[in-house]
Amino acid sequence: MRDAPGMIEDKIRQLASGPNFGTIATLLSDGSPATHVMWVDCDDEHMLVNTETGRAKFANIERDPRVSIVVWNADDPYDYVEVRGKVVETMAGAEARAHIDELSHKYHGKAYSNPIETERVILRVAPERQRS
Amino acid sequence: MRDAPGMIEDKIRQLASGPNFGTIATLLSDGSPATHVMWVDCDDEHMLVNTETGRAKFANIERDPRVSIVVWNADDPYDYVEVRGKVVETMAGAEARAHIDELSHKYHGKAYSNPIETERVILRVAPERQRS
Repeated sequence: MRDAPGMIEDKIRQLASGPNFGTIATLLSDGSPATHVMWVDCDDEHMLVNTETGRAKFANIERDPRVSIVVWNADDPYDYVEVRGKVVETMAGAEARAHIDELSHKYHGKAYSNPIETERVILRVAPERQRS
Repeated sequence: MRDAPGMIEDKIRQLASGPNFGTIATLLSDGSPATHVMWVDCDDEHMLVNTETGRAKFANIERDPRVSIVVWNADDPYDYVEVRGKVVETMAGAEARAHIDELSHKYHGKAYSNPIETERVILRVAPERQRS
């Protein structure tokens, strides 16, 4: 059932589950695009990124939830996927704090130790178009 | 005079001049973002990417010239830069064909050999905000 509507496609899940980097494009207040390099993750039906509530990209998605996420194979950037969709849920609190530790373990094998200036928050992105 | 208004900042020029990959975020007809992984280049005052006239991203920038280009260090994706701005000129023809060969040499040490389906075109992007 991986290819059921709303499910993240296998190829995208595979790249997003590994220690591969991505970008998220969000929309500024004038509608122009901004892009950030990010750690990435997914669940069965969403792409997941973890940011802070004080960051510009969080303000952007609160204003307009439309995003584009690209993930490339760390060993081969020609091997990349894109998910276009909307942030359908944001989750702060303990869940987001635990998730940034999970991501840090995935990418670096240890808990997250960078300073947290505001509050960690998970952006849950429902796909509308998947390119893989 | 590298930091004069309109000049590409040194750090960005350095990454864009090497065989580092980037993304370009463009706007679809409904204003939502789309992102592609690209080869990248720059001159003194512009970021340069090379696409084809038949590609969706070319249609996007003809409709709305606002883009965001990210370039990351191929050896360290935490080391990345972003340029937000507008496509101020497009150049097809012999110049664009020669430029894709230059890019291919930069990334792979040989002339471009992929099929060209429509026509190569250079997008010349004037920066409005540079993050490095």
